[in-house]
Amino acid sequence: MTNEGARGPRLRQVPEGDDRERLVCPECEFIAYENPKNVVGSVPIHEGKVLLCRRAIEPRRGYWTLPAGFMELGETFAEGAMREAYEEARAELVMGDLIGIYSVTHIGQEHIFYRSTFRSSTPHVAPGIESLDVGFFSFDEALALDLAFPTIRYALTDHLALPQAGPFAPVERRLGPAKPREPKEA
Amino acid sequence: MTNEGARGPRLRQVPEGDDRERLVCPECEFIAYENPKNVVGSVPIHEGKVLLCRRAIEPRRGYWTLPAGFMELGETFAEGAMREAYEEARAELVMGDLIGIYSVTHIGQEHIFYRSTFRSSTPHVAPGIESLDVGFFSFDEALALDLAFPTIRYALTDHLALPQAGPFAPVERRLGPAKPREPKEA
Repeated sequence: MTNEGARGPRLRQVPEGDDRERLVCPECEFIAYENPKNVVGSVPIHEGKVLLCRRAIEPRRGYWTLPAGFMELGETFAEGAMREAYEEARAELVMGDLIGIYSVTHIGQEHIFYRSTFRSSTPHVAPGIESLDVGFFSFDEALALDLAFPTIRYALTDHLALPQAGPFAPVERRLGPAKPREPKEA
Repeated sequence: MTNEGARGPRLRQVPEGDDRERLVCPECEFIAYENPKNVVGSVPIHEGKVLLCRRAIEPRRGYWTLPAGFMELGETFAEGAMREAYEEARAELVMGDLIGIYSVTHIGQEHIFYRSTFRSSTPHVAPGIESLDVGFFSFDEALALDLAFPTIRYALTDHLALPQAGPFAPVERRLGPAKPREPKEA
C-alpha cells in the first residue's frame, strides 16, 4: 500500500553495474534514468523582424518567448524546432544555421536554437493552444519585452552577434552549475 | 498484485493535457516521458591518428568505437564527451569543433560528435572498465575495422570531409524513420 503523496520512482539508489544514484520505484522497480532533455527552437526572421509568442501556459505565462519546446521521439533537432513553431504560432518555417547550444544544467535541459525563415513570402501566423498572442518585433523591441527565459535572450543576441551567413560554429553556453560526481573506485 | 514479468510503466495512454501516447505505470501512475537521449562523443586526434576503443560491453562487444556515451545531468555536450573519453580510455581531451549531430530516431538517440585533441603532447591512454583495448589508428586503418555503430563511421568520415579548421556548420543527419504523430483536433 502506498500513500497518494508518495508514489513512483522516489528512492535514491545506485543500480547494479552503475556508478551513480538513480531514482528507483520501490513498488515496481522501475529505474528513472534522468538524462538531459532537449528543448529545440528557432529565431524566425521575416523582413528583419522576429516572431515571438506570448505564453498561455506556466511556467512564465504572459511572458514572450521564441517558438521552442521539448523534442519528441522520431524527429531531428531541426524537425522538432519546425513542429514547435507550427504548434505555438502556426508558422511554417525552414530551418537555417544552428545558432546556439545552451546547457541549462540546474533543470536538466539543453536548449538548442536555429535561425529560421518562413516558407511563404507572406507568412501567416496565429496563436496555437499554448500561446496567448504571436507577433513580429524588431530586435530592439524584442529585447525590451519581458522575455520568458534567459536562453531566449541568448538566442536573440547570439543571432545578432553571429555572421549574417554561415558557416559558423554554434555558440555553446552553460547556464547552471555542474553537478560533480562521486566516482566509484575502479 | 503484479507478475515479475510485467512491472513498471507499460500502459499506452494519452495523459490529460497531452496530445500523444505515453507509457504509464498502472501501479504507481508514473508517466515515463520518452524524449530522445543524447550520446556525446568525439574524434580524438594525436599526430594524425585517431583514438578508438574496443567495446567490453554489449551491444557490440568486441567492436571498435569512438569514446562516447550517454550525457548525464549537470554537464554540457562537450563536458560529457570529455568524461566519456576518460571513462573509456583514460584519455584527457580538449574538445574542438562540433562535427555532427546524428538523429538515430529508431532508438530515440541523438549522437553528437566533436573533434578533440589531447591535453598532453605525449598522451597516456588505457582501457577503462567498458573497454577491452584502446589504440591509435590511421583513418584508413580505422575505417577498415569492425566499427560498432553507423554513427562512428559518419563521425570519422565527416571529420575528414570538413575543413581542417573551423568555423563550419555541424553536419546533421537522420539515421532512422520519422514517427509520424496523430495530431489531436485543435
